[in-house]
Amino acid sequence: MTDQPSPSRRLVLARRPDGMVDDTVVHLEEAEVPTPGPGEAVVHVTHLSIDPTIRTWMDDAPGYLPPIEVGAVVRSGGLGTVVASQNDTFPVGATVFGMLGWQDHALVDGTPGAGQVVPEGMDPTAVLSVFGVTGMTAYFGLLDIGQPKEGDTVVVSGAAGATGSVVGQIAKLKGAGRVVGIAGGPEKCAWLVDELGFDAAIDYKAEDVPARLRELCPDGIDVYFDNVGGEILDAVLERLSINARVVLCGAISAYNDRGSAYRLKNSFMLIMRRAKMEGFLILDYLDRFPEAQADMFGWVLEGKVKHAVHVVHGLEHAPDALNLLFTGGNTGKVIVEL
Amino acid sequence: MTDQPSPSRRLVLARRPDGMVDDTVVHLEEAEVPTPGPGEAVVHVTHLSIDPTIRTWMDDAPGYLPPIEVGAVVRSGGLGTVVASQNDTFPVGATVFGMLGWQDHALVDGTPGAGQVVPEGMDPTAVLSVFGVTGMTAYFGLLDIGQPKEGDTVVVSGAAGATGSVVGQIAKLKGAGRVVGIAGGPEKCAWLVDELGFDAAIDYKAEDVPARLRELCPDGIDVYFDNVGGEILDAVLERLSINARVVLCGAISAYNDRGSAYRLKNSFMLIMRRAKMEGFLILDYLDRFPEAQADMFGWVLEGKVKHAVHVVHGLEHAPDALNLLFTGGNTGKVIVEL
Repeated sequence: MTDQPSPSRRLVLARRPDGMVDDTVVHLEEAEVPTPGPGEAVVHVTHLSIDPTIRTWMDDAPGYLPPIEVGAVVRSGGLGTVVASQNDTFPVGATVFGMLGWQDHALVDGTPGAGQVVPEGMDPTAVLSVFGVTGMTAYFGLLDIGQPKEGDTVVVSGAAGATGSVVGQIAKLKGAGRVVGIAGGPEKCAWLVDELGFDAAIDYKAEDVPARLRELCPDGIDVYFDNVGGEILDAVLERLSINARVVLCGAISAYNDRGSAYRLKNSFMLIMRRAKMEGFLILDYLDRFPEAQADMFGWVLEGKVKHAVHVVHGLEHAPDALNLLFTGGNTGKVIVEL
Repeated sequence: MTDQPSPSRRLVLARRPDGMVDDTVVHLEEAEVPTPGPGEAVVHVTHLSIDPTIRTWMDDAPGYLPPIEVGAVVRSGGLGTVVASQNDTFPVGATVFGMLGWQDHALVDGTPGAGQVVPEGMDPTAVLSVFGVTGMTAYFGLLDIGQPKEGDTVVVSGAAGATGSVVGQIAKLKGAGRVVGIAGGPEKCAWLVDELGFDAAIDYKAEDVPARLRELCPDGIDVYFDNVGGEILDAVLERLSINARVVLCGAISAYNDRGSAYRLKNSFMLIMRRAKMEGFLILDYLDRFPEAQADMFGWVLEGKVKHAVHVVHGLEHAPDALNLLFTGGNTGKVIVEL
């Protein structure tokens, strides 16, 4: 099995993008299926996890990981099956999760964090969403940084996204008094309230966000889980309660437009409300994933945490899948099925 | 002694200011010396504590205390001597610290926080600076919010001010590896390094702050104690180290200019550096003042914490004294001696 007859394909970064990613930014290349060296295994990639952070790696800007080099395969989480192996940790046939990249075949080795075998029988979309980095981001961001207390008012932006939708549900089951989601469009808003049990939702495309926040959060906002940054972050800052916690998870509104990034008007309110605003990196929580996954597993089984998946078919459509995150074209986790 | 022959004076807020405070904003009025009712005492004010926060109370904007009402005496910390009393807590002759206001005579009662008797023999300027709210702000802001660790690089803005100068000294004696102060003018910078033991100082009026920060903080900034906000905060955000702590103490650059307040460009870096930015209110730490005052007392005695005072004479010059904080005309604590 170390020799595959069919060629492999991969998407490489052709140039650094200015805004959205198109076929001038990412090129589809033919490639040989790699042969595993000592300690290596070849994974046939079946699913890609499409996350906003991928867009930040395409910029030549400081980040928690180095930028993707021009000419290199686009970095991405993914799931696949081992098809050739010289590493006993990754036997042929095993399902592996790791930074597999936008390609049909990836090499993994024993490097910590490079790849891990997934228990048999798990739903691949759940591995990439609630039990994966997305769900862990919701869990630790909300509970560790946001520290919601019984009765708190919790607001989540990007609420119909993979992370936001889980954040709101965890907040509810941890006793938040009121959970308000901010999302784009009436369908998403209805889904949040009717299916996921949010107390209310604000359609930022049609409604006046500051006015609706005043209405829905009369006693201020205790925890804000921010996936978008920009004007919505500013609107929330204006309504923080005393000792509020702002969890900075992402700034989708800025990722495609760093140069002329939105400038925050109300950071001043952090002083007035003696509040904190904090960024975090889910990779810092790797050693605590098991406890969170155990909780999440129970909640999913009991039906307390639901998740939605938006599947895009075909490696060649990975760039479109990424763009969906910034146009708000998705509800729930975006996954590319190869 | 309940009847004083000489009249009293007070400064009342005549209108809400647009920028600096002048005599169209604050009016000097003649007044009767008050007579204490049951449970009250009359304090003859001898010193006023001039703090940036007074300027924020003049605006009709949300804050940790309600705005000063138009027509009311300007709210201010101060020190004075009891001259008439119907409250055993405040015997005639006692020195009292409290929110006495910009006036010759103030009424205090038993309300918690309204006033407290100061031990005999204390230097009034030390009561209002290092042992007072200013020193406590430096202490808890740095140690509780900033949490400096051995070897950390600590940067302080407004470093020649009452709070900033103490922050830098506490950081040094707690083992910070490098303490950099940002202040305006070569004299202030020399004072920080030569007298107070800062490792370096940046003159923001003459030097390129981002370039100097790069030079002086090659491994990034672990703790930033921010007294000024604005462009300097943005420059520091760009150089935060991983897990950095930004202590928001004040935003002097914005207090006179809320409408067109500076808009922060680099809040995004809090995500990239998984850092936190946090405001605090020293009044939340009232019950922990004794421990801090004990530490501070020892440090002052040992000469490890030095403080400077900038005295302005005469109640009528209180507005000019306040403006000094925003023009940077002071080194150390600004006090008005009546």
